[in-house]
Amino acid sequence: MEKDTVSQIKLFMEPRSIAFIGIRGESGAGSRNPLKYVLEHGYSGRVYPVNPNYKEIAGIKAYASVKDLPEVPDLAQILTPQHLVPRLIKEAAESGIKALLVVAQGFADSGGDGRRLQEEIVAIAHRSGARVIGPNCFGVANAFLNLNTAFVHTEMEKISIGSITQTGFFFAGFPAMAVAGKVLDLGNTCDIDFADGLEYFGQDDDVRLIVLYVEGIKDGRRFMEVARRVARRKPIIALKAGRSAYGKKSASSHSGSLAGEDHVYDAVFKQCGIIRIEDTEELVDLCRTFLAFPLLKGRNLGVLTLTMAGGTITADACARYGLRLEKFSDDTIKELKGLAQDWLAVGNPVDLGALDFGPKGLKSSFKVGLETVLSDPLVDCVLAILPSTAHQETVMENADAALKLADIHRDKPITLWLYGPEKDSRVKERYESSGRIVNYPSPERAVRALARLAQYSEYVNQVD
Amino acid sequence: MEKDTVSQIKLFMEPRSIAFIGIRGESGAGSRNPLKYVLEHGYSGRVYPVNPNYKEIAGIKAYASVKDLPEVPDLAQILTPQHLVPRLIKEAAESGIKALLVVAQGFADSGGDGRRLQEEIVAIAHRSGARVIGPNCFGVANAFLNLNTAFVHTEMEKISIGSITQTGFFFAGFPAMAVAGKVLDLGNTCDIDFADGLEYFGQDDDVRLIVLYVEGIKDGRRFMEVARRVARRKPIIALKAGRSAYGKKSASSHSGSLAGEDHVYDAVFKQCGIIRIEDTEELVDLCRTFLAFPLLKGRNLGVLTLTMAGGTITADACARYGLRLEKFSDDTIKELKGLAQDWLAVGNPVDLGALDFGPKGLKSSFKVGLETVLSDPLVDCVLAILPSTAHQETVMENADAALKLADIHRDKPITLWLYGPEKDSRVKERYESSGRIVNYPSPERAVRALARLAQYSEYVNQVD
Repeated sequence: MEKDTVSQIKLFMEPRSIAFIGIRGESGAGSRNPLKYVLEHGYSGRVYPVNPNYKEIAGIKAYASVKDLPEVPDLAQILTPQHLVPRLIKEAAESGIKALLVVAQGFADSGGDGRRLQEEIVAIAHRSGARVIGPNCFGVANAFLNLNTAFVHTEMEKISIGSITQTGFFFAGFPAMAVAGKVLDLGNTCDIDFADGLEYFGQDDDVRLIVLYVEGIKDGRRFMEVARRVARRKPIIALKAGRSAYGKKSASSHSGSLAGEDHVYDAVFKQCGIIRIEDTEELVDLCRTFLAFPLLKGRNLGVLTLTMAGGTITADACARYGLRLEKFSDDTIKELKGLAQDWLAVGNPVDLGALDFGPKGLKSSFKVGLETVLSDPLVDCVLAILPSTAHQETVMENADAALKLADIHRDKPITLWLYGPEKDSRVKERYESSGRIVNYPSPERAVRALARLAQYSEYVNQVD
Repeated sequence: MEKDTVSQIKLFMEPRSIAFIGIRGESGAGSRNPLKYVLEHGYSGRVYPVNPNYKEIAGIKAYASVKDLPEVPDLAQILTPQHLVPRLIKEAAESGIKALLVVAQGFADSGGDGRRLQEEIVAIAHRSGARVIGPNCFGVANAFLNLNTAFVHTEMEKISIGSITQTGFFFAGFPAMAVAGKVLDLGNTCDIDFADGLEYFGQDDDVRLIVLYVEGIKDGRRFMEVARRVARRKPIIALKAGRSAYGKKSASSHSGSLAGEDHVYDAVFKQCGIIRIEDTEELVDLCRTFLAFPLLKGRNLGVLTLTMAGGTITADACARYGLRLEKFSDDTIKELKGLAQDWLAVGNPVDLGALDFGPKGLKSSFKVGLETVLSDPLVDCVLAILPSTAHQETVMENADAALKLADIHRDKPITLWLYGPEKDSRVKERYESSGRIVNYPSPERAVRALARLAQYSEYVNQVD
């Protein structure tokens, strides 16, 4: 079954040929012609427009029916309104196509008759041994094959994230993530489910992190079995929507999902080692965090800050999200004391302002302070709080120093909060392009992300 | 007392002349010379460097002692290390200066002897009828007078926000706020307290919103009396740090404050109508929200979205933060139904995608949908969820349409979540420069901000 699932999903995610059934000829802006975008993205497989009303579409010979195609394509994407879908599913399945993707809305998402129509197309497909993704689905995206079957243009990049969703949203470059790596939109999830996607991404070497957008999961038992197994090898983060009564109603009219009791999902995710996120911004934070950092050895955070208010805010965040802000080792304290004025208390958070006024002065305080804290065996990860503006030269020197230290201390994540108005994007870029240090929009979000990384690290250590 | 307080604070915030006592002559980059920055900002009052070791500083005649000054300045900022402060406070107070600001650390913030030293300087000042701000304080900023006495260069703009803080942090253009309007940094808060600042900003016509960064408040009774009164006229938002054990420890070594029990602050803020914020990003959101929108008439949110997953996430956020996502009026539903395909359910959230495929097509769906929802008497505020990228022309037309509607429906806040990678900053700028529509980085943050606005609106209506 496991191997079977993987080869079935491969037809959707790595097809060598695709039929676009019911595709129309429009190609201007806003035409919503997926074939046009597939060609623009540079997909190198074979594509077949299928529509009896056209001789060619986007410069490619069109076929009146799937029965006329010169080969049995790996994947068929069905693009007609919902009432035509059952007949086209039947033709495609009977002609031997094993992967069917249905785009139209108006199935379980619209209730009543739509739900029956949805059950019908699954039954038809299964009779010929085909599987269905959708309906009410955007398509699939695989940046590693320059493949994107969405009907709007969305950008892709070869990032090591596999998303399994019930929305096309993730194609639009989910907020600030900029781009999609691999996306499997399950839509109404009539047949292919989250467990199938997990099975596939679990074995996919291109994918290091799996993201779920869940409105409802049908086969909970199988989901748990697969998720538990996959989460040991790769982090899985999940945004579960429909937690409230409002949200359940909305989910039900969106993907036709029964959202279920929220606390059940909480328990399921926890048992499987899935990190459940609180909001859309955490999704972005955790993608960056999990791709940048190794597992954490513990929950002790060392903080260096030029603003002690930032230190206090960070301390509160540690209590809220479950990181520890412990005393440094005696050696570290001794070393830091040597840098500060003698009447100043030295602790965690480290007051970089105090070091600045100390005998060694501004320029070296961050670098020496960071090196000292990173070398402390009691410290598992670090947050540095620095202004993005003042003394541009110093800020850039600090970035270089931090990046060098990140190379030496690869086992200890270095996070950053660059605060203040952004005047010069080079500083952020210098840090962000490194892939080694992650800059967060607030200290709270840095702490939350590290706490989730700790949670996942503990799951992996506990099950091993 | 009230009038007295205001005229005392005016000496700090609107001085006609300032003595910089103990200022040094360095003026290069990183010299931390506040006089240099005061001149750069274009302050038009009179300034007097006071230091016996210099003949002039920054091109201005220096005086050996405050006793030699040609006038009694409104404000003296004392810049020496802490052991020299008591003598200089005494000289300044005895020469008649009524407003004294102490920059040095090493007082209550370092415990023990420092705390006694701090009590001593207050006693000395009071003997001559002077008041003290600080110690451990950045200075004051008043963009409306081009005055900024901080020892690092920070930018200002005439925005209608008055901040009372216990950190210099707010000078550095608190995260993404870009700039400070008016800032009163209380530092260790040895004498001038939050109540004094509230009294002052309460009567200040330049200020429409008051922001507090609180580590500890001493005179709770007076604070409550003043805050309750001021909050009826102007919103007060507060970031209270030191809520956790870690945070209390950090606050104590930062401003020497006793942070107190967190639930007491919760109760106090609630009774006074002060909006307590959860994190640094909410501070930014609420500044934008309270400056842009009038009071809310109720908690009913109308949502328009091109992604129904965004709608479901918003629905969950409504439940979490306390906005309502109710059915539209019959008239609204009838009108929306006319725009959508007939088999699609129409509700709140409105699926703009469904309208796009309806008889009227893409271009008008947002505009007509927004107009319809805004005209619904059951709707108090609106969130529109739109991609920032696709069809740039449409996006800009949408922005123009929304801004026109915002002018017509001034009583109903229109909020926005533009999602997706930002390709062209003009869209955001078009919205943001309007000052009428606020774009948030996530739907959760839009909903949270509107819920806080509702909370404040209810406070004002209840006490009136």
